[in-house]
Amino acid sequence: MKIWQKNVDVNQFVENFTVGKDRELDLQMAKFDVLGSLAHTQMLETINLLTAEELKEVQLALKEIYKEIEAGSFTIEDSVEDVHSQVEWLLTQRIGEAGKKIHSGRSRNDQVLVDLKLYFRSCIEEMVGNTQELFNQLISLSNQHKDKLLPGYTHLQIAMPSSFGLWFGAYAESLADDMELMLAAWKITNKNPLGSAAGYGSSFPLNRTLTTELLGFESLNHNVVYAQMGRGKTERILAQAMSSVAATLAKMAMDVCLFINQNFGFISFPSELTTGSSIMPHKKNPDVFELVRSRCNKIQALPNEIAMMTTNLPSGYHRDLQLLKENLFPAFISLNECLEITTFMLQHISIKDDILKDKKYDYLFSVEVVNDLALQGVPFREAYKIVGEQIDNGTFKPQYELKHTHEGSIGNLMNAEIAEAMNQTLKGFGFEKVNKAIANLIA
Amino acid sequence: MKIWQKNVDVNQFVENFTVGKDRELDLQMAKFDVLGSLAHTQMLETINLLTAEELKEVQLALKEIYKEIEAGSFTIEDSVEDVHSQVEWLLTQRIGEAGKKIHSGRSRNDQVLVDLKLYFRSCIEEMVGNTQELFNQLISLSNQHKDKLLPGYTHLQIAMPSSFGLWFGAYAESLADDMELMLAAWKITNKNPLGSAAGYGSSFPLNRTLTTELLGFESLNHNVVYAQMGRGKTERILAQAMSSVAATLAKMAMDVCLFINQNFGFISFPSELTTGSSIMPHKKNPDVFELVRSRCNKIQALPNEIAMMTTNLPSGYHRDLQLLKENLFPAFISLNECLEITTFMLQHISIKDDILKDKKYDYLFSVEVVNDLALQGVPFREAYKIVGEQIDNGTFKPQYELKHTHEGSIGNLMNAEIAEAMNQTLKGFGFEKVNKAIANLIA
Amino acid sequence: MKIWQKNVDVNQFVENFTVGKDRELDLQMAKFDVLGSLAHTQMLETINLLTAEELKEVQLALKEIYKEIEAGSFTIEDSVEDVHSQVEWLLTQRIGEAGKKIHSGRSRNDQVLVDLKLYFRSCIEEMVGNTQELFNQLISLSNQHKDKLLPGYTHLQIAMPSSFGLWFGAYAESLADDMELMLAAWKITNKNPLGSAAGYGSSFPLNRTLTTELLGFESLNHNVVYAQMGRGKTERILAQAMSSVAATLAKMAMDVCLFINQNFGFISFPSELTTGSSIMPHKKNPDVFELVRSRCNKIQALPNEIAMMTTNLPSGYHRDLQLLKENLFPAFISLNECLEITTFMLQHISIKDDILKDKKYDYLFSVEVVNDLALQGVPFREAYKIVGEQIDNGTFKPQYELKHTHEGSIGNLMNAEIAEAMNQTLKGFGFEKVNKAIANLIA
Amino acid sequence: MKIWQKNVDVNQFVENFTVGKDRELDLQMAKFDVLGSLAHTQMLETINLLTAEELKEVQLALKEIYKEIEAGSFTIEDSVEDVHSQVEWLLTQRIGEAGKKIHSGRSRNDQVLVDLKLYFRSCIEEMVGNTQELFNQLISLSNQHKDKLLPGYTHLQIAMPSSFGLWFGAYAESLADDMELMLAAWKITNKNPLGSAAGYGSSFPLNRTLTTELLGFESLNHNVVYAQMGRGKTERILAQAMSSVAATLAKMAMDVCLFINQNFGFISFPSELTTGSSIMPHKKNPDVFELVRSRCNKIQALPNEIAMMTTNLPSGYHRDLQLLKENLFPAFISLNECLEITTFMLQHISIKDDILKDKKYDYLFSVEVVNDLALQGVPFREAYKIVGEQIDNGTFKPQYELKHTHEGSIGNLMNAEIAEAMNQTLKGFGFEKVNKAIANLIA
Repeated sequence: MKIWQKNVDVNQFVENFTVGKDRELDLQMAKFDVLGSLAHTQMLETINLLTAEELKEVQLALKEIYKEIEAGSFTIEDSVEDVHSQVEWLLTQRIGEAGKKIHSGRSRNDQVLVDLKLYFRSCIEEMVGNTQELFNQLISLSNQHKDKLLPGYTHLQIAMPSSFGLWFGAYAESLADDMELMLAAWKITNKNPLGSAAGYGSSFPLNRTLTTELLGFESLNHNVVYAQMGRGKTERILAQAMSSVAATLAKMAMDVCLFINQNFGFISFPSELTTGSSIMPHKKNPDVFELVRSRCNKIQALPNEIAMMTTNLPSGYHRDLQLLKENLFPAFISLNECLEITTFMLQHISIKDDILKDKKYDYLFSVEVVNDLALQGVPFREAYKIVGEQIDNGTFKPQYELKHTHEGSIGNLMNAEIAEAMNQTLKGFGFEKVNKAIANLIA
Repeated sequence: MKIWQKNVDVNQFVENFTVGKDRELDLQMAKFDVLGSLAHTQMLETINLLTAEELKEVQLALKEIYKEIEAGSFTIEDSVEDVHSQVEWLLTQRIGEAGKKIHSGRSRNDQVLVDLKLYFRSCIEEMVGNTQELFNQLISLSNQHKDKLLPGYTHLQIAMPSSFGLWFGAYAESLADDMELMLAAWKITNKNPLGSAAGYGSSFPLNRTLTTELLGFESLNHNVVYAQMGRGKTERILAQAMSSVAATLAKMAMDVCLFINQNFGFISFPSELTTGSSIMPHKKNPDVFELVRSRCNKIQALPNEIAMMTTNLPSGYHRDLQLLKENLFPAFISLNECLEITTFMLQHISIKDDILKDKKYDYLFSVEVVNDLALQGVPFREAYKIVGEQIDNGTFKPQYELKHTHEGSIGNLMNAEIAEAMNQTLKGFGFEKVNKAIANLIA
Repeated sequence: MKIWQKNVDVNQFVENFTVGKDRELDLQMAKFDVLGSLAHTQMLETINLLTAEELKEVQLALKEIYKEIEAGSFTIEDSVEDVHSQVEWLLTQRIGEAGKKIHSGRSRNDQVLVDLKLYFRSCIEEMVGNTQELFNQLISLSNQHKDKLLPGYTHLQIAMPSSFGLWFGAYAESLADDMELMLAAWKITNKNPLGSAAGYGSSFPLNRTLTTELLGFESLNHNVVYAQMGRGKTERILAQAMSSVAATLAKMAMDVCLFINQNFGFISFPSELTTGSSIMPHKKNPDVFELVRSRCNKIQALPNEIAMMTTNLPSGYHRDLQLLKENLFPAFISLNECLEITTFMLQHISIKDDILKDKKYDYLFSVEVVNDLALQGVPFREAYKIVGEQIDNGTFKPQYELKHTHEGSIGNLMNAEIAEAMNQTLKGFGFEKVNKAIANLIA
Repeated sequence: MKIWQKNVDVNQFVENFTVGKDRELDLQMAKFDVLGSLAHTQMLETINLLTAEELKEVQLALKEIYKEIEAGSFTIEDSVEDVHSQVEWLLTQRIGEAGKKIHSGRSRNDQVLVDLKLYFRSCIEEMVGNTQELFNQLISLSNQHKDKLLPGYTHLQIAMPSSFGLWFGAYAESLADDMELMLAAWKITNKNPLGSAAGYGSSFPLNRTLTTELLGFESLNHNVVYAQMGRGKTERILAQAMSSVAATLAKMAMDVCLFINQNFGFISFPSELTTGSSIMPHKKNPDVFELVRSRCNKIQALPNEIAMMTTNLPSGYHRDLQLLKENLFPAFISLNECLEITTFMLQHISIKDDILKDKKYDYLFSVEVVNDLALQGVPFREAYKIVGEQIDNGTFKPQYELKHTHEGSIGNLMNAEIAEAMNQTLKGFGFEKVNKAIANLIA
């Protein structure tokens, strides 16, 4: 069943080792393998490597397989090495010789490259969608709780008044910035490597511009050696973009675990969303957020793992690259789940009222008093000294009414501007154009 | 000399530990600290925290310090903790009370944040400039050597004909893609954190939009809690962008070390650019490229290091973040040197002629013959079998004339398109706008 | 089914997220969970928390479950959260009330801790065994090929004569050193955490010394807070030890990929152990070694991943730690496979004869000639100059006969000493003592 | 000045790039370079490559240089590449021709290797000494505060009573385990690479066993190819051992930052050891511990950095390895400072009394009550239910008197056993033997 087989049989032991988890992981790429072939064969016909008749047959059969994949009835048989061989084998079974011809002008290398890129595009779209959901939830919570204050810490020491409006909004804006990195990863992903063959191009008069259009790519990886070099690099950059979203989630999860701790006690979740103990009724273990934190920290380590597996490899394909699927594919699922469950949990968050009324937070307001004096004309260092003395004398009176009005402060969250920035970045992806091309291909 | 000093003296042992390498590293930020103060004080005057007279005095004194920094006569004294204190101290020495007022409406935290962002912007501009130089050198070499063939390897086994046109061009295109990530880092960097104070905003009616314009930022970090959260995050993302350039350089350096090895022998450099031994005259150690590889691999590990130092820290400032300067600042210098020296070395590279004339490379051309048959109508698998038999019989004749014509192949490198893509990305930075704003500030 | 359940039902969505891959991964720990319970219950009886009768019943039932696990008939049901619950549930089904009592004086935390330690011990034993096999294979190849020379490279430039005796022996000695680190990991692992309960000990008069003996631990994690702290730390240290073995394998795999490359051509493997192409008959892709390299580089990134997931967590259990199973468990399997397949492949390696007879390696011998002159009394720098001039004049004559006799050189490999060092380290593990204790427990 | 110079001058630009920070970093190795030469020359005389007279001269001159290094009067001149050249140059200046002969039978490669190993040994000894100091401080604090209780957390939720006796003792025991890894690193370091020349041995009849004894090495790196392979590997393993100590310190620092936070408020430090603000008198920023955490997390990332810089390099020396000095040397200093300052800070820690008297911690004691019932014969699950109902009814009465008596629990800290385990591990290093050998060399 293996393309590279000649007359020798590869030892079974070796085969198991080399195939690894490909059969399992490749299922996620099946749809995209068919899409690549749909485009490639249309192109082959234009350069006379397929007849119009053969093309028709092949397209029909490929679309049928595509539907089977979508219906969940497609599998990779144990005797078959990977998804590419499985699709080719099905095709040959069903339409005979024409099926074999689809491999003309293509190597396994660029076939896998284009499959990965198409798959990554769909993963990015899903991650961006889930990020947007969480972003909206955060903005909505920020607006809803804009008047609820909490202590702001520096050095983990109570420092200044903050608010849940600020806290939720900060993580929303963080996600908006993360999308800049995701957009860069998208741009690098959304270029067509098909036609680079084994990484050195082909003597066939391929039309790579045509497959670029058919597959909805923004452009192509021009240089064929670079197209091959994109393997591993695309994965690493995509993992870096994911690590940025993950870092935002992990940080928020850390805050949540702290704020739900009884010494802080700022927030809570319904019992059914935490775990506990009947003899320690105040115990509400935030398992979900601990696992979000842990999964996201794992994703933060992913770019380094990919770099470790690819660094110092000279140019040209190496089998090492196959293994990156094992790292990256489960990370897509994991990050999406983290985004979804965080949104879900936040829909059920409760915020404690009047946190700052506790006397231990009184000194939070000392800066306000200093600034007030300063605005009345007292030099800042002087005002600072006066309040310091009031505190020493025990005559200090906190002034609970906050007058933070500048851009991005408690009284002026700028959530609309943050949402607008998010929107601008999201527009840059252009998922519609891509999806339209794909829809045309399988129509 | 320390802002947070009250009446107690911090133990000397502790002070040395906490100051660390700040004095040394902060010198790189000195110019940017002055720029931040120039903008901040202009804003303070508009909200009546400085009089017009005071502003004039302060601006004059700050511009003088700026010139001293540019002239190299500015130092941070041993009795002074960091660059911010040094500038403030000089100012107070020179203009008295007005100098103390510049700290109004600002915290050490947002002051450092804005200094870092301004410094990072200048570092990005320098790295982009050096990348462009190397890019141009690569494109030029690609065009110059487009007809010189070398073996293309897969699995490090000789596989297909390649060319130095492809090889140089591939690394050029790789740099062009790396700039997408650098652009994302730039966009995230190029937002104004000033006015976020200690990370929770201020009760002063600050005009953050004004300082955003004055400092040439594209926008602001709206939410003040997020502005603070940008510390560490900006560093990590910038390191990720740098790691992508570094990965490209390291891979090329690995190729160079292989190609200069006597078993390959594809390229060489003048003796004065390699090291050797008088009794092993063929030994030309590619030390420069080994060190480029090593330095760049160190930079590849940098984003992970930053993540390790920042992960699981709850929101709000922590002193941990101070240490990131030690990681990132030397990496700017190192990457710039790697870019420069690689460009320099490539200006002196020699390419061996007629590499593929060596008989051991004959089989490289077998795919060409198969494709030729296929184009003449022989089914691909059939053609493959015919050539296989010729090789078995010893009747195979390589066909040295290559007919690779498709996009990005040996005969059609598309270097113009690659250069155009690079240009498009570079336009996105908008360094001119930034530099104009800075020029206005110090005019 | 869940221990911490009270009256509330945890949302299904949350449950799936929190259980994760536990059911799948926990199967590997099943045997060890039973062993832990066998020891714990024996101890409980000595402090009167179980009657002699109950103990008998429980031991019988546990041993039955142990046999089922060994026979492969044990599964974790979908309605059950993890292996610990499954064992407990089976026990209660079979012997009723006494089954419930085994949880006395134990928390889920120390139960998992001890299970992991017991499991890790068995993994270490297996990895050490496989390392020993490979070590023996390497020593044997080193002795067998001690007279076959190959070029020694520095800076990847041909430098000095080397031999396959040296090359194989070097990797053997590398494995011997790696075992020092593995032994440290073993010592840290081989301490009993049972009795630390939730990380703060218990008011029951537990006899931790007894369970330490019963389970064959060398000692105990004395302090209960430290016992808990061992979670994550043990994993990280074990991963570090594994990463050292992995680094040795990856380096050897890199050498193999280079040496099998046609430009070097020093070694080869039978066709059935490589992959190729019928039209490129000289192509023998070393897929196995590329995958060994890649898998081992992945393992090299593992300690960092664990550190990233555990750093900055305050003391005490966090759910984050559960996820480490996903990283570490598959790495055991992967490293063992890499060790086995490398041994297997090396059983089939062919070494090219007379590699150094090729003229391009002549200068390798120049140092020999210099040294010869030096031994005859010519000052080294002088001798160096003489040979340099001979080479310049074209009068240099290589002297193919090597006289390397000192310790560890071509003529004196010291393989016996290396094997003895390996043996000494292996003795330090004391697997027999551990296995005897386990055999007693299940007898 | 450079050994490898022939008649060509290496471009200045290239030279600066390749020398890098060697002059600065090499100063730390100067003493050890002299030690290596003292041993090497003694050996040379025994194989007649030095006369007895020459040896006498050389030893005298080397010992003089050694004293100059110890006195701080040794420098590396700008015109000299590294420490090895500087020592050689001084020697030749002072004793002429005999000075040149010390290079016989040695290559720059094994000279650097042995210098690094000797330097690492001294670094390990210093780190172990500092670890021991901190260990003693922790044991002493554990004994002193054994009766002071604090809440024990799981999932960062209050869970069980703990004590400062446990807390301090846990970190002591953690350091004891860390020393196991350090001992493994020591064993791998403490083997003699001298005589491996450029990594392929020498045709001189060197006596490597003699230099092994003279330098106090436990054994030798037998195989010369492996001796060379130790470069990079020794660094990585040493960094792994350091990362384990660092992880312990970072975790403790995280606890400290949490416990000093006002919401916890369990511990405090004198004002002069924290930083604060006169208008926020309760603010005591734990800068020292934040920086300990940050520096230690940086050290935790170090093994990965070294792996990234060395992985996938084929066997044989590469210039890449030179750069590892930049990573590792400053880490020695940093870890030592962290150990020292942590010891210093802990000498001034204050522990709050009666923390658990606060009502919010009442439920901590519920498990005690359950266990009490169980010990009175009530089945555990039943006892659990009873207490759960008491809590629901509001009739629960905490029982403040703890009866934790088992090994390693609050009432039985086993600090003596922990100290004994530490002692046993420390004995394994055998620093005395090493120091005696060194003393003999320079006598």
